[in-house]
Parts: sequence; C-alpha cells; structure tokens
Amino acid sequence: MHAQQIISTHPDVKGQINDALIRCIEECYDCAQTCISCADACLVEENVTELRQCIRLNLDCGDVCLATGATSTRRTGSNEELLRSMLDTCAVACRLCAEECEKHAPRQEHCRICAEACRRCEQACQDAAGSFATH
Amino acid sequence: MHAQQIISTHPDVKGQINDALIRCIEECYDCAQTCISCADACLVEENVTELRQCIRLNLDCGDVCLATGATSTRRTGSNEELLRSMLDTCAVACRLCAEECEKHAPRQEHCRICAEACRRCEQACQDAAGSFATH
Amino acid sequence: MHAQQIISTHPDVKGQINDALIRCIEECYDCAQTCISCADACLVEENVTELRQCIRLNLDCGDVCLATGATSTRRTGSNEELLRSMLDTCAVACRLCAEECEKHAPRQEHCRICAEACRRCEQACQDAAGSFATH
Amino acid sequence: MHAQQIISTHPDVKGQINDALIRCIEECYDCAQTCISCADACLVEENVTELRQCIRLNLDCGDVCLATGATSTRRTGSNEELLRSMLDTCAVACRLCAEECEKHAPRQEHCRICAEACRRCEQACQDAAGSFATH
Repeated sequence: MHAQQIISTHPDVKGQINDALIRCIEECYDCAQTCISCADACLVEENVTELRQCIRLNLDCGDVCLATGATSTRRTGSNEELLRSMLDTCAVACRLCAEECEKHAPRQEHCRICAEACRRCEQACQDAAGSFATH
Repeated sequence: MHAQQIISTHPDVKGQINDALIRCIEECYDCAQTCISCADACLVEENVTELRQCIRLNLDCGDVCLATGATSTRRTGSNEELLRSMLDTCAVACRLCAEECEKHAPRQEHCRICAEACRRCEQACQDAAGSFATH
Repeated sequence: MHAQQIISTHPDVKGQINDALIRCIEECYDCAQTCISCADACLVEENVTELRQCIRLNLDCGDVCLATGATSTRRTGSNEELLRSMLDTCAVACRLCAEECEKHAPRQEHCRICAEACRRCEQACQDAAGSFATH
Repeated sequence: MHAQQIISTHPDVKGQINDALIRCIEECYDCAQTCISCADACLVEENVTELRQCIRLNLDCGDVCLATGATSTRRTGSNEELLRSMLDTCAVACRLCAEECEKHAPRQEHCRICAEACRRCEQACQDAAGSFATH
C-alpha cells in the first residue's frame, strides 16, 4: 500500500508522519480483506455449522477494520477522541476474531492465516492508540 | 427500512426482537447517508474553508455508522463485547459530528439536518448499548 | 431516511430534486441492510449448505448497494458516467440476488423479504438510470 | 496484503489462483485508501475550490474500489455476471478519477500519487475482467 507516501503529502502533515498510525492503516485493510476471505472459505467447509461463530466474527471484524482504516487515514482538522475510541474498538474486534480463528487453525488453514492477520492488526491498533499522546 | 421485519425471521431471534437495537440500526444507516450528503454539500459552500473540520467529522461519522449498522444487524452466534464497544464509539462519532454541525446550523441548513440525524443516532446507540444487559 | 430533505439543501441542487435518484438511494441502504441480515439468517438455517450461493449473492449485493447509495448521494460537480455504470451494476446485483432468494422464499421467510427488497432496489436503480438523461 | 495466500486456501479454489484477480483485489484496496487520502489532502489545499470535482471523484472511486475488492475476494459459488459488471464499473471510476487527478498532479503531489494508483487499479480491473473467460 501507499499509505505513507500519500499521507506524507497532506499539507498539515508536512512530513511529520506517525509511523504507528501508518502501519495500523495498512494492517486494517489487510485484515479486512483477510476476514472477508476467511468468512467466504469457512462457508464452504464441510464443518460449516461449527464455523458459524467464526464467520460472524470475521464479517464484523472486516467491517470494523474498513471503518478504522478510513478514519485513521484522514489528517484534516482533528478527530482524536473518535480515533482513539475506534482504534480500541478495532483492537477488540481483531482480538475476538483471532481467538475464534485460532480454535480452528489446526484444521482450517484460512483460519490460521486470518488469526495471524487479526493479531497483527490488533497490535497495530494498540500501538497507534498509544502513539497518539505525542503526535 | 425493513430491519425489524427481516431480523425477526432469524432462526435464533424467534420473535424476541431488541427494539432499541433495531432503532439503532435504522438510525445508523440514516445518519450515514446524511453525513455523506452533508460533507458533499459543505464542499460547495462559499465558506468551505470554515467547514473543513465539519467535512472531516461527517466522513468519519458516516464510516463509523455503516460499520455499526452492519455489526448491529448480525444475530448469528454472539459478539456482544464488540457490539458494546462499537455502539459506544458510534455514539462518540455522532456526538462530535453533531457538535460541529450545530455551529454551522444557523447558516447551513444541511448542517442543521445532519446535526439532528447525528443526535438521534447518538441517542439510539446509547439506548441500544443500555439495552444489552437484558437481551 | 432523510435523503430528500438533506440533498435538497445542496447549493447546486437548489430544490431541483431527481425523485428517482432519491428513491434509489433509500432503496440501496434498505437493500444493503436486508442483504446483510439475510446472509446472517441463512447461516444458521439447518439447510445452510443449500444456502451458500444465497449467502454469497447477499454479501456481494450488500456491498454493491452501499457503494451505489454513497455515489448516488453526492451532488458536487458531476460523475454521471460512473453513476450510470454503478446503477446498472447495482441492478444486476439486485436481480441476481433476488433470483436466488426467490428459490428459497417458500421455505425461508428472510429470503422472501430479501427478494422483495432486491426487486424494489433493482427497479429503483433502473428508474434512476433512466431519469439521468433529463437531469 | 495476503490476498493470494488466503484465497488459495478456499476449498473450491484448490490452488488454482486467478493471478489477475488477486492483483486486482490488492490494487482495489490500495486505490481506495489512496483516494480517501487524496480527498482529505485536497480539502486543506489553498485552491480547494478548484479541487471540488477531484474530491467528488476521489470519494466515489474509493467507495467503488472497496465494493470491488470485497466482491472480487469471494470464491464461494459464483457471481460472474456481477463481477464482470463491477470490474467494468471500477475501471470507469478509476479512469475518471485518474483523469481529474492528472490535471492537478503538477501542483498537488497527492494528486500525482493518486492518479498513479487509479491507473494501476484501472488496468488491474481490465486485466481481471479479461481473465474471466478462462477461469
């Protein structure tokens, strides 16, 4: 992705990039696509009835990640109170989805991949939220 | 919208509808569309430079409302921890957008309409979050 | 929804509302929520394996409807070539989802409701596309 | 992104990956984030009134790219008629946004970056649409 490159050209950013937030944006879009794909793959597994909760959490996590990616991208004016809350919520979505996917990871490879994407995104959201005080 | 009608047919819901959550879903989609429209109208106002923060908050609020509408719609399995956090975050997004729109409401009619939609959605999110303990 | 009310305040619209487009916007958000809900309800049905294709079409249709609702809402400048193409694509998404849902309507009430929402949205997209020549 | 890795684990894909479609998915999410960012940067430029059409096209293109990324990700059942139409529409959205951004590229660096992302995504959509006959 080109998040760092384009956000660094925002007139109010002037090269002062928040690296943690950039990484969070990239992880959010990656995690969203991965969750959409995991839900889709779960749906055709033989044991789909055991994967219903996983599909639910996948779809919720994907929606939350896309909203977090968009709100984290904008640098005009400020909306820090929302951004902190959104990053916390996204970390929750990713943690819950990762926990469920990890249960199915030994049998479903897509769940193993999705759990990893969710854990990376969870960490990135936490790091971005933590970086805010000084940016 | 037909949120109540269709959600009441979900096999796990069996007619036991959470009215506060249904209302929240409807307000989320209404607020999302209104915020997208307010940002779009602000953009062609003569005083657009004074409305930049409003456009930022509009776009953020619209994204958060759509994610809240989707996650609030699903009734398969459960994802209450996420839903509570998302409803809280959505109430924050709506409050911040309403506060900014209210500043411009005397001059910009779309900001007056958008502020009202955001206040309704903020209240609906709070009511839905509050209803969860007993559903 | 308040689509008509807020779009009529856009400085470039000046009360000259395209009624077909307004109705299309409202149907798009309604259909998106209905499709998300139908996919979610299909997932917990006993015959979920017969409903996989329905879930796939539901999720695709929901995504397309949200993008159509957003692009149809904006009145700044113009983007007619895209809007025509998007409305045509959305009509396709709605028709295909309706056709599949209609197969399951006798057994699954949510599929009956979703098929109706998709048919209304398909018609609204066609009407909106047809209205463009004169607006 | 991990689109190729996760989609290759879908039970119906069985390693038979459509490389053009994978690349299209990645370009769609990249282009969506870039368009959201370009609209946001345009908004704080001194010449914002000259960039209104660019912001409009950015926001529309971002919405369309996200819907295309999601519908292109799913491999359950089939939805080829929709996918072809969506890929065509996305190519239109990207082309129109690129043409507008290219006008501003000499003065606005974010428009130069965004035009490039749109052109890559336009090409990827065309390639993916073309690849469908044989997959």
